[in-house]
Amino acid sequence: MERLFAVIEAVLNQAKLKPADTAGICAAAASPIDMNTGMVTNAPNLPGWEAIPLRKIIKEKYGVDAFLINDAKAAALGEHEFGAGKGINNLICITLGTGIGGGIITGGGLYLGQSGAAGEVGHMTVDVNGPKCVCGNVGCWELFASGTAMEGEAARRLAGGEKSSLRTLFEAGGHQVKAEQIAEAARQSDRLALSVIEWSANHIGTGLVNLANIFNPELIVVGGGLIKIGALLLEPAFKTVKQRTFPVISRAVRVVPSTIGDDAAILGAAAFAFNKGKV
Amino acid sequence: MERLFAVIEAVLNQAKLKPADTAGICAAAASPIDMNTGMVTNAPNLPGWEAIPLRKIIKEKYGVDAFLINDAKAAALGEHEFGAGKGINNLICITLGTGIGGGIITGGGLYLGQSGAAGEVGHMTVDVNGPKCVCGNVGCWELFASGTAMEGEAARRLAGGEKSSLRTLFEAGGHQVKAEQIAEAARQSDRLALSVIEWSANHIGTGLVNLANIFNPELIVVGGGLIKIGALLLEPAFKTVKQRTFPVISRAVRVVPSTIGDDAAILGAAAFAFNKGKV
Repeated sequence: MERLFAVIEAVLNQAKLKPADTAGICAAAASPIDMNTGMVTNAPNLPGWEAIPLRKIIKEKYGVDAFLINDAKAAALGEHEFGAGKGINNLICITLGTGIGGGIITGGGLYLGQSGAAGEVGHMTVDVNGPKCVCGNVGCWELFASGTAMEGEAARRLAGGEKSSLRTLFEAGGHQVKAEQIAEAARQSDRLALSVIEWSANHIGTGLVNLANIFNPELIVVGGGLIKIGALLLEPAFKTVKQRTFPVISRAVRVVPSTIGDDAAILGAAAFAFNKGKV
Repeated sequence: MERLFAVIEAVLNQAKLKPADTAGICAAAASPIDMNTGMVTNAPNLPGWEAIPLRKIIKEKYGVDAFLINDAKAAALGEHEFGAGKGINNLICITLGTGIGGGIITGGGLYLGQSGAAGEVGHMTVDVNGPKCVCGNVGCWELFASGTAMEGEAARRLAGGEKSSLRTLFEAGGHQVKAEQIAEAARQSDRLALSVIEWSANHIGTGLVNLANIFNPELIVVGGGLIKIGALLLEPAFKTVKQRTFPVISRAVRVVPSTIGDDAAILGAAAFAFNKGKV
């Protein structure tokens, strides 16, 4: 919480603004949000963040209108207002990072669901025989298709003794390798790295196919840190969507990487504040 | 096609109406529909039905307004207008039968997607290592949670030699058993039958959890032939939704069986015709 306040204050100082000069302050959090109450409910990837009334806390601390939105929904708003999704009415936005977030635009507006928590696409089961997820479900998409999953798969295989140019990094890095290191090794034709990227791309494709068959969207925008790996990861995943969905759905959908990258959620959160929390 | 015409004419004769006396004729088909063109595109469970301009065929044959809608979407409209979903704005309707269909109500209206083919929830992958589906995808939900899947699982296990009171029926029935026979045997405490029902319930629950986490709906209505089995099948599946979804989503959702059963799609198709194809 202290870090959050420090960031808010640094941004205000940098812009030479007082809180009262702003349209409001919007926080975008990597958690299912109860938008009716403005609560961070329970964040699988933020241990300890459970039932935190963040909207009220910010409002009271700074004396301004405060807003709270899920980070992936903010990214979807950002893509819709400023990015690859401008002017598109039926749009799914996915962020591949530590976990997988989702934001759904239907009829030109953000689809929130009953409590404002719709879009938890990272927690759809894609492997009914898969491991338990911290969210309470099993075999969730983000256990296979997030950055964390990619790094975990590489670490498992390195720990299992497979040959790879990543071994030195793995051992120096506390038996971990980073997604960007895997990508770099893959570009140098390292067999393990290429195979891990293929594993990830296959699983990314699986979830995108599910979303395409469910939503028949005009556009799927894929963002998040993992897309920095580029075509090596994304092209096979996007091709899977074209190949495995129903023809009538496949013909209608474009799948593209984010054009505004890490700014998507920030821009979307700003848009949310300027719109006074209307979507 | 001849059978379809015969049904249309039988209904008209029974009601002593001419086509021109009707608000129109609506066909509900178990296929992804291109609603822009009025085509049955490709029906995984209706071999040979591919790219059939059914709306135009009916319109030309009977000289009336004709409408075409996916059967599960018609059922969702039926539940929303006349059934368990009356007055509910965010609603998912699932039909468990030969396959699994889906209809999505958002903001009080049917969500169609870009070509009118949204809601193909039976074709989301729930087992990334699962078998190929006729739709072109792999490990689809309907391969595990439909009536066909239940009967297939029972037949596989009977063919594998497991003990069961179903064996006589299985052998007399051309090495097949029907879902209702499995249910009846389960009610008599047959171990194989109980285990198959548990297998099905688990897989039904898996897909419902996915849809709940994606849509944060107020209501999920489960219809289709399989629900005749009742609480034995549905209660564990519904309980799974409550247990495995995010708390904020779990608290918001009710999961109920259809109250209008097989009439849902017929009533929904009628509503679609009376509304002149508006949703």
